[in-house]
Amino acid sequence: MPSERNTDVQELADAVRRGSPRAVARLISLAEDAAAVPGRGGVLRHVMAALAVGASGPSRARVIGLTGAPGVGKSTTTNMLIAGLRGRGHRVGVLAVDPSSPFTGGALLGDRVRMRDHGTDPDVFIRSMSSRGRLGGLAWAAPQALRVLAAAGYDVILLETVGVGQIEVDIARLADTTVVLLAPGMGDDVQTAKAGILEIADVFVVNKADHDGAQATIRELRRMTSLAKGPWRPPTVPTVATRGDGADDLLTALDDHAAHLEKSGEDHRRRLTRAREEIENAALAQLRSRFTDLHGDRLDALARQLLTGEVDLYTAADDIIATILRIRPEINRF
Amino acid sequence: MPSERNTDVQELADAVRRGSPRAVARLISLAEDAAAVPGRGGVLRHVMAALAVGASGPSRARVIGLTGAPGVGKSTTTNMLIAGLRGRGHRVGVLAVDPSSPFTGGALLGDRVRMRDHGTDPDVFIRSMSSRGRLGGLAWAAPQALRVLAAAGYDVILLETVGVGQIEVDIARLADTTVVLLAPGMGDDVQTAKAGILEIADVFVVNKADHDGAQATIRELRRMTSLAKGPWRPPTVPTVATRGDGADDLLTALDDHAAHLEKSGEDHRRRLTRAREEIENAALAQLRSRFTDLHGDRLDALARQLLTGEVDLYTAADDIIATILRIRPEINRF
Repeated sequence: MPSERNTDVQELADAVRRGSPRAVARLISLAEDAAAVPGRGGVLRHVMAALAVGASGPSRARVIGLTGAPGVGKSTTTNMLIAGLRGRGHRVGVLAVDPSSPFTGGALLGDRVRMRDHGTDPDVFIRSMSSRGRLGGLAWAAPQALRVLAAAGYDVILLETVGVGQIEVDIARLADTTVVLLAPGMGDDVQTAKAGILEIADVFVVNKADHDGAQATIRELRRMTSLAKGPWRPPTVPTVATRGDGADDLLTALDDHAAHLEKSGEDHRRRLTRAREEIENAALAQLRSRFTDLHGDRLDALARQLLTGEVDLYTAADDIIATILRIRPEINRF
Repeated sequence: MPSERNTDVQELADAVRRGSPRAVARLISLAEDAAAVPGRGGVLRHVMAALAVGASGPSRARVIGLTGAPGVGKSTTTNMLIAGLRGRGHRVGVLAVDPSSPFTGGALLGDRVRMRDHGTDPDVFIRSMSSRGRLGGLAWAAPQALRVLAAAGYDVILLETVGVGQIEVDIARLADTTVVLLAPGMGDDVQTAKAGILEIADVFVVNKADHDGAQATIRELRRMTSLAKGPWRPPTVPTVATRGDGADDLLTALDDHAAHLEKSGEDHRRRLTRAREEIENAALAQLRSRFTDLHGDRLDALARQLLTGEVDLYTAADDIIATILRIRPEINRF
């Protein structure tokens, strides 16, 4: 590493530790860049290393995932939660992740604007991330952003995702507690969602609980969760987030789940699983950048042979792996 | 490879080449399994190799992607296209890919039922695939399924995806021609979709063209595409798929695009890019299975150190890569 960079790296790490919003924003942008363009992560890697050293253990922030279909009121609920958590003295980070970008860029921007209630509060940091580059980029960049926010002293992080597809499920896995939001009469009702929803929800929120059909939705969720196996039965909390109704009940449900996680040891197991996945993803990202950087020509030649039927896919993949395995590991490549 | 397997492999490859629907279905299931459970791809890899050898070049089938939000009428449009293509004497494969599974499993099943118009036609093969395992599984399994269908003699393959998120964009990239479907008054209108839609659409279909607001949607799309740079300006085709209206216009638009691809050389470029990505994905999938199979313990230890702050993410990833690089490549691992 060139010595002139050392100053930058140490300064940026220090600024993040002091909680500078500008430094936090810059580091998250570096993580997005590195996910989109392999080989761009030089500074990022050194700052992240500097942040890890001497930390009392990274990711000690509590991460609360919020997910649900568009229109259920995720942003108003996030707003309500920010207010409740600030009232308890927490510093709150909000990371809004949009896997379906660029297609819903407009909608997300609108959401951000609505959250500006807290825009002038120095103890609230709000940031959205989108999938700029290839598939899998977010799965790599989002945990980095969580680490940055944790290092900056945000002790509760709200991780908001747009839908309930596969990517959202993967992102939700980054959370300690996942809140699934539903609203009455949304079409994507309990029956439709049933198949996979129990697997990821730790807490259900039925927002717009003053609307027609809310009671039926709540009843159905409670019936469904009463059948849940395992030590934790997800509670269903009715809210009217635009009025702040149900905020206390939601905070209580989150506390209950946090207590359960710690008591059962599930807390540690989840963090360990996530750490494994993060390491795996970082290693794969690094290997992927080797493919393109070092073996573009070889890959081109194999792609041509695959098209003409001279090689099959597996033989081509073996060839690329063999080429990579002959390279010695290099530091600072990523 | 054990010799008793050779017979199986050759038989399955031959059955696929003869166009046996049962053999095609079995091989696609093997691809799904291999994507979901690393290390399960033994038979698959040998059959795929057998199919590649002596082929006149794989993937010579024409792949037409169909994408759009739920409710725009993708299945009825697919139905209409199948009828039109059968009328021209093509053998048609349909691959419906659902990246958001398990959450929309119900809806997709309904779609499949509607497509049963062609269920008794031996020259139509319909199959859905979902993301059973980890993120990225579909990106790996879908091209395998396309190869299988091409080897079985389906000369046009309709690749249907549910939405227009990032995974769908990646899947759409597998198509020679991508059709983006819109319907009037869907909320996800042209303006919202604008940001990224031009990048993937080769042909626009405005379905339900007899509904209110259809003319406005068509006008807006045509205005938008008239500004498109580059040699191909995506046409906008109005359809009423339930009645078969617009089928001929849509087939003509697809023919025009095919002619453009071939004339411009874009055809070859797209296929080459896809081949590169397939090889990369196959190599990464193989490396990923090495992580978990051979280095589970090392990964666990590093995950613990990451949690306590003893190592940072990048150092941990370097360690895993170094461990992998010390292993000699093995054949038949994947």
